[in-house]
Amino acid sequence: MADINSTFDIGVTTGPIRGSRKIHVGPLGVAMREIDLEPSSGEPPVRVYDTSGPYTDPAAQIDIRKGLPQLRREWQLARGDVEEYAAREVKPEDNGQLGPDRSGGVPAFPNVRQRVLRAKPGANLSQMHYARRGIITPEMEYVAIRENIGREQIAREMDGNSWGAAIPEYVTPEFVRDEVARGRAIIPSNVNHPEAEPMAIGRNFLVKINANIGNSAVASDVASEVDKMVWSIRWGADTVMDLSTGRNIHDTREWIIRNSPVPIGTVPIYQALEKVGGIAEDLTWEIFRDTLIEQAEQGVDYFTIHAGVRLPYVPMTAKRVTGIVSRGGSIMAKWCLAHHKESFLYERFDEITEIMKAYDIAYSLGDGLRPGSIADANDEAQFAELYTLGELTKRAWEQDVQVMIEGPGHVPMHKIKENMDKQLAACGEAPFYTLGPLVTDIAPGYDHITSGIGAAMIGWFGTAMLCYVTPKEHLGLPDRDDVKVGVVTYKLAAHAADLAKGHPAAKVRDDALSRARFEFRWRDQFNLSLDPDTAEQYHDQTLPAEGAKTAHFCSMCGPKFCSMKITQEVRDFAAKQNSESYLAATAPVADAEKGMDEMSRVYNETGRELYIGQGDREHD
Amino acid sequence: MADINSTFDIGVTTGPIRGSRKIHVGPLGVAMREIDLEPSSGEPPVRVYDTSGPYTDPAAQIDIRKGLPQLRREWQLARGDVEEYAAREVKPEDNGQLGPDRSGGVPAFPNVRQRVLRAKPGANLSQMHYARRGIITPEMEYVAIRENIGREQIAREMDGNSWGAAIPEYVTPEFVRDEVARGRAIIPSNVNHPEAEPMAIGRNFLVKINANIGNSAVASDVASEVDKMVWSIRWGADTVMDLSTGRNIHDTREWIIRNSPVPIGTVPIYQALEKVGGIAEDLTWEIFRDTLIEQAEQGVDYFTIHAGVRLPYVPMTAKRVTGIVSRGGSIMAKWCLAHHKESFLYERFDEITEIMKAYDIAYSLGDGLRPGSIADANDEAQFAELYTLGELTKRAWEQDVQVMIEGPGHVPMHKIKENMDKQLAACGEAPFYTLGPLVTDIAPGYDHITSGIGAAMIGWFGTAMLCYVTPKEHLGLPDRDDVKVGVVTYKLAAHAADLAKGHPAAKVRDDALSRARFEFRWRDQFNLSLDPDTAEQYHDQTLPAEGAKTAHFCSMCGPKFCSMKITQEVRDFAAKQNSESYLAATAPVADAEKGMDEMSRVYNETGRELYIGQGDREHD
Repeated sequence: MADINSTFDIGVTTGPIRGSRKIHVGPLGVAMREIDLEPSSGEPPVRVYDTSGPYTDPAAQIDIRKGLPQLRREWQLARGDVEEYAAREVKPEDNGQLGPDRSGGVPAFPNVRQRVLRAKPGANLSQMHYARRGIITPEMEYVAIRENIGREQIAREMDGNSWGAAIPEYVTPEFVRDEVARGRAIIPSNVNHPEAEPMAIGRNFLVKINANIGNSAVASDVASEVDKMVWSIRWGADTVMDLSTGRNIHDTREWIIRNSPVPIGTVPIYQALEKVGGIAEDLTWEIFRDTLIEQAEQGVDYFTIHAGVRLPYVPMTAKRVTGIVSRGGSIMAKWCLAHHKESFLYERFDEITEIMKAYDIAYSLGDGLRPGSIADANDEAQFAELYTLGELTKRAWEQDVQVMIEGPGHVPMHKIKENMDKQLAACGEAPFYTLGPLVTDIAPGYDHITSGIGAAMIGWFGTAMLCYVTPKEHLGLPDRDDVKVGVVTYKLAAHAADLAKGHPAAKVRDDALSRARFEFRWRDQFNLSLDPDTAEQYHDQTLPAEGAKTAHFCSMCGPKFCSMKITQEVRDFAAKQNSESYLAATAPVADAEKGMDEMSRVYNETGRELYIGQGDREHD
Repeated sequence: MADINSTFDIGVTTGPIRGSRKIHVGPLGVAMREIDLEPSSGEPPVRVYDTSGPYTDPAAQIDIRKGLPQLRREWQLARGDVEEYAAREVKPEDNGQLGPDRSGGVPAFPNVRQRVLRAKPGANLSQMHYARRGIITPEMEYVAIRENIGREQIAREMDGNSWGAAIPEYVTPEFVRDEVARGRAIIPSNVNHPEAEPMAIGRNFLVKINANIGNSAVASDVASEVDKMVWSIRWGADTVMDLSTGRNIHDTREWIIRNSPVPIGTVPIYQALEKVGGIAEDLTWEIFRDTLIEQAEQGVDYFTIHAGVRLPYVPMTAKRVTGIVSRGGSIMAKWCLAHHKESFLYERFDEITEIMKAYDIAYSLGDGLRPGSIADANDEAQFAELYTLGELTKRAWEQDVQVMIEGPGHVPMHKIKENMDKQLAACGEAPFYTLGPLVTDIAPGYDHITSGIGAAMIGWFGTAMLCYVTPKEHLGLPDRDDVKVGVVTYKLAAHAADLAKGHPAAKVRDDALSRARFEFRWRDQFNLSLDPDTAEQYHDQTLPAEGAKTAHFCSMCGPKFCSMKITQEVRDFAAKQNSESYLAATAPVADAEKGMDEMSRVYNETGRELYIGQGDREHD
């Protein structure tokens, strides 16, 4: 990874992704990457969707103590519906009872905004609200340009099966507006996170992926958390969830949000539980509400709210093999049981929605009763909760608040589609956001793969965002390498889903890479791949010589057996013939004697010499 | 991997897989593994399918210079249809023109059999031939016991969608015979490979996986090749293909076969091409035939034969993005073009079949025109060849010779099922054996995953064996770590397919592992996983203390937030209540006030104390 300029003084990874140039397109300066191909290819650069933010832009000045530029600030103010006010004061319990001397704590972010934004009384900042009033926001325009990457380059063949989605040949701002208005897509965009580059999550857009980061009671520190965010967006994470549960939860989040060009999600109940010393039954609406405001003012773009874990559903989990595996779900189940009352998240749902619309925070309605094992997939508890999430979706939409729905979990392949079908029906096509699902339980250490299989499939069926799983799932906390493997695995799963759905430009990158592979343009092959560093490293382990990167063979077959080289000869030969007459001469085979000697002579003149040349090289 | 006793003097990995005991079941001594669970679980040991051979049996004497015991020798002789004869003499060209001084060569296997077996004149050693005459061989009995693992332990719930397969609740020897007779399954079992433990490849049996090993012109040596075989079967490879293309090809194969307890496959055209100095057009039927005999006498269990690459199909590949990517396919395409003649493999197919039946070698009809990129999937060339393979299947069956069909390759998700459907129809349900398929081209370095997605799906749809892909695919030669990752990835894909097809006992291991996970039996969780060493290693990276393996929490949430512990409390609580009256009291929710205080009191007595105790531990 020689070309990554790790600036250790600021603790995050910067520098271009190898082989890519950062570009900014149109008046909004929509960020993309362009991969230049070798001149011999005669091909134009390949543009790819880019989530990495300014960190991969050599022209950007990165200082994580200052945070990123406020891309959306002007757009927000121009709408005239926001007011600035003094932010809620940070309390000791926000950071796990960190005292004024801050001993044991991370440094506070040095540039905290004392004044924050929210909707003026009676206003609603939600992108859905604008959309429903017919307003195309700059966020929607940004999304349209971003989603169209590559579509101008191709003949717009729609080769795929989208299972009833409505993927357009070309994404217009009006299309984005319409999707948001209908609730089929969301643009998570808290007014206090103006640093974020707008992106859409919806079944008719490219499939997105989320990476989870966060410290826990056991390990982690702020510098590594910020870098995990930067590192995960470098490799393709479209959003990042901060699932911190230890101390310093408030300050860590501030560092992350101020430096994040992608939407940030959280599960506010985690922090609320910290504030009551970890005793679920001591949670109250007031503490929870205060936590929502705290995080809203910091700029969290979507909240996971487990409002579907209702009291009567809790006993449905008693006979499961793995009960309740969602942290938020189990906290709420415990609260419900301890008080023998309906969940305050459910009862206060409309009040939560009031907060969401004042900052434009999107709901990510949590699946607190998702299955934690193959045995528990698609059971009564899971679907009871899903129907409640559908009911809550409609209630949120009544206030024009954006919603997505979280999904499982652990599901064998034959039960995956039922999840998608039921979600679409129950939740009115609100975007589905699933964790995998894992298609078997027996491969701890490889659950990025067991879940990548399920993720690719459910992404194809219509899931809008896939929450990544790392190799450490079920075993430990992911490190930097695990985060990268998780992100790349999910990026390839999401892309496979885009291909299968028939997204018009999804094939552009596959085809460019395959042509590079066929023509032995090794560097183009590396640069076009999701992880150019690993691709080159693996190649070099077998053939380290620099010359091997321009050799017209590879280590699998060696120079003499190379099937791709032989194919090139076949192609050259076929090109020399009139294809029609060639076929006429060869089919039916029984009549093919005529002309064979002549064709054999032509072939041997065109193909054999080059081939022997390669063979000779090996026998030197 | 402390418990692997690597005996470096013999160069291969031995010792039990951690947490497993080798067992031998029934009069045939069918090899399996048993995983003992912690006594606290109150659960019986879990039996799992075992491909690892004597290498994981502490009681076995391993000496790779002697080779493995000849398990099947007596069965073969008892049938009275074999004759012993002097083996073909090894020629210099068999080992890449290695001279008598063997300079630059690997050592010859010290225990080569001078006399080998074949069918008596007029006899046919094929398992299919016995099956069609109503004979149940010991091989079929062995397979039946092997395939039934776990089925006695469960209530035989058939939860799955097998897409029209005919998976029995219980596998009888008669069922195996019938499947082999119909051509729906094969038992690869060359009479000269009596060391192999019988196994079946067929849509109504467990999904199998193959690992490729083999040196090339660029790298490798014999010791590492034998250990790659031992290493790949340790982690679950059901068959191994030796794809060597360099020198020492004959001697390396002898070392591998004499030490392999799983069927060995090869692509004979690779060695034949070596014998003509790498010049495809110099290949002749005589040289190819002599190579078949050479390998038949060594004991190769199945041959990949690219007899479907017919002259008229070659020009169909000219406009592909990646032409012909199969090595065998491109060699034959080149031969056909150079001579402008029909393939000698196609023309001499019945003569090849005569050889196959004299040794009981199975056909693996090669897909020489498989797509090498998403762009080329499911095209005219691919399916033209498939239909020819169907025609050849029937011709092989006319002589009672076992057949499986090779399949792609690179296929986007929405085009996978068409491959399976067309194969079943064209090839009369002969077992399908696919390479992945890869569902996108853009992730070199991660192609075990892009292909694992396609493999799990096509395995579910009915593919009988999945050929593994390692992380080095397209980039370099796999090392030991890559082989393991490839095998484990394919094992989990095959198992996911078994689950989705509804194999009666597939869930046994998932459920046992999930119960272990839920009850924090960490060691059981490691031992039940496909790769116990990696699972424990990942766990220990975050929580290295020995005590953490018995702790009732894990590193993801820490002790206070543990969702699984909370669920246990929910379950304990629910168990204390009469479930009926509990539900009556809680639903509908609006009527639930009655009795709440009492229930809250009971819950707090049963659950809260334990929970606070855990919380306290963290705050110590």
